[in-house]
Amino acid sequence: MPTLRREQLSALSSGLLKAAGASDEEAEIVTRNLVKANLVGADSHGILQLISYVNGIRSGVIKPGARFEVTKESPSTALTNGNWGFGQVVCSKAMKLAISKAQKVGSAVVCVFNCNHIGRLADYTQMALESDMIGFICVNGDSAVAPYGGKKAMLSTNPLSYGIPAGKENPIILDIATAIVAEGKVRAALYKGEKLPPGWILDSSGKPSTSPADLYQPPLPPAQAKISGAIQPAAGHKGYGLGLVVAILTGALTGTLCDPEIISGLTNTVYINVIKIDEFVALQDFKNRVDRLVRTIKDSPKAEGFNEILIPGEAEVIEEEKRTKSGVTIPDFTWNALTKLCNEYGFDAEKLLDD
Amino acid sequence: MPTLRREQLSALSSGLLKAAGASDEEAEIVTRNLVKANLVGADSHGILQLISYVNGIRSGVIKPGARFEVTKESPSTALTNGNWGFGQVVCSKAMKLAISKAQKVGSAVVCVFNCNHIGRLADYTQMALESDMIGFICVNGDSAVAPYGGKKAMLSTNPLSYGIPAGKENPIILDIATAIVAEGKVRAALYKGEKLPPGWILDSSGKPSTSPADLYQPPLPPAQAKISGAIQPAAGHKGYGLGLVVAILTGALTGTLCDPEIISGLTNTVYINVIKIDEFVALQDFKNRVDRLVRTIKDSPKAEGFNEILIPGEAEVIEEEKRTKSGVTIPDFTWNALTKLCNEYGFDAEKLLDD
Repeated sequence: MPTLRREQLSALSSGLLKAAGASDEEAEIVTRNLVKANLVGADSHGILQLISYVNGIRSGVIKPGARFEVTKESPSTALTNGNWGFGQVVCSKAMKLAISKAQKVGSAVVCVFNCNHIGRLADYTQMALESDMIGFICVNGDSAVAPYGGKKAMLSTNPLSYGIPAGKENPIILDIATAIVAEGKVRAALYKGEKLPPGWILDSSGKPSTSPADLYQPPLPPAQAKISGAIQPAAGHKGYGLGLVVAILTGALTGTLCDPEIISGLTNTVYINVIKIDEFVALQDFKNRVDRLVRTIKDSPKAEGFNEILIPGEAEVIEEEKRTKSGVTIPDFTWNALTKLCNEYGFDAEKLLDD
Repeated sequence: MPTLRREQLSALSSGLLKAAGASDEEAEIVTRNLVKANLVGADSHGILQLISYVNGIRSGVIKPGARFEVTKESPSTALTNGNWGFGQVVCSKAMKLAISKAQKVGSAVVCVFNCNHIGRLADYTQMALESDMIGFICVNGDSAVAPYGGKKAMLSTNPLSYGIPAGKENPIILDIATAIVAEGKVRAALYKGEKLPPGWILDSSGKPSTSPADLYQPPLPPAQAKISGAIQPAAGHKGYGLGLVVAILTGALTGTLCDPEIISGLTNTVYINVIKIDEFVALQDFKNRVDRLVRTIKDSPKAEGFNEILIPGEAEVIEEEKRTKSGVTIPDFTWNALTKLCNEYGFDAEKLLDD
């Protein structure tokens, strides 16, 4: 299992994407999102995704050079068509549009359809908070989650993210699935041969299971095994309700797909909301209040088994510092698939490794 | 335990509020919210609240006749001051303002500070969906919930609600606490002498408990017992993260209070977001898609122990039909407190009852 530094991960990702047909700008935007995911510990959203992306380009699902198109617009809203470009490229443009609209009229909602996998959500809400705004994003995808009271996957893990700027404290970046667990964690347990905690998944017959293999169609473990069981929603009816809302904000509001209809494993449909803080309160006042709340919570008594109370996004900050020094270890399965792809483009990934 | 019909509940609520100083309009708005809560089964937000409200008027916390004031405004945002009027009156005006702004510019965010208890959230998002918009509201209040990794109450149950119109199906009205359970359900278990499921609460020393009394300061059970323990967040870090976001959207964004600082048990600070659907897609198209998703989910295979998959808000529709026929039974404790208050205003509540 090779360990790669940030620069090595970036060179691999960028090199492969450009070889497969991405422009310099597209390769840079997608690479930034994937490598950041590896650095913060979200490996399921890291360079592993290059395998799907390159296959997506080859099969015509991802269209490099696609035009980002605003199809309907009001002062504080926009509906946009990604024309099946790279999800990260499309979604970055949508977030920029939302920020610029909120800058003018105070708040904005931007939706995107015909969009591929946008990767880790936190990157987009971070764009908003770096513009001193509050950012919200949610996204749908392939069905993987049972409704509360059901036993068949009818909704995607329908994740959502909020980004909120702070002053001296780390910003708050919440990035959570409305399912009890992200699908990537079940897959990780499968590869490691570990059992799941009770209550996470149902098998294809709808029975509770602790065996990660029961979530997928055999044969296993291919990288893109299809889901035949179902993940449970977070907190029963609560996560189910939120997941259903996400399905509608992204699917029905874009006039495209709601979850059970998603057509490609790479499809994401996106809802973005941005709020300009200083239309409400002076920015510094807001940041001071966030700092005070964060500090008060972090200084409050710890539960048994906890040394620290973390703020959403803080675990990722800590992991990124660690992995920036230590590098990111890529499982052999992923590494072999990536080097094979690189070879097909006459590009020697092994050369990127340290001697 | 008397059982009252809708009209009787309304007459009691309206009579008592007017006797205590509310205008006709204020009494009507507050009464509609409280009686609806009783009818849909949310008794903790029903006419029980009149006890706090009348005491709030007497102590000067609730100010009948307060002016609803817009203190800062942009095309798609407004910061508003409730001047400590009735929460329901203030919040209805804020929702109307949000709807009218979204009507003009596509979407809107309206926040409210200096506001008292707004009651059941679903009523406000229902206003939005009845205007063919998507409504979102969240609210903070008294500290009751431990952060993930902590053992002291630092956040309120910080609930949130989404309202989404459908076509032929019931509208989707999600109304959930970001805590694992609403505080009213712990109180209900206390009154009934029941144990709680494991994982709901911590006692005042931070130890897990299944005894509802452990959430409160003795002596018990007064109607407004103070919280000394803590409720756990829903789904661990997920509910905690969402609760923290709610605290900031309502507290920091209004330049007022974040949770641990809330000054009165009646204080609510509010964040509202409204989206005009037909700025994105034709309304009928949207409703058809929502109907189809709802129908597909409801028709999907049921989990063991479930005969039906409910859509958020559907349990309330069913309960309202039932209670509209059967009437609402008011516990003796509540009834005695209410009749006592009525008597103090020379108003005989017993006369409202059927012979």
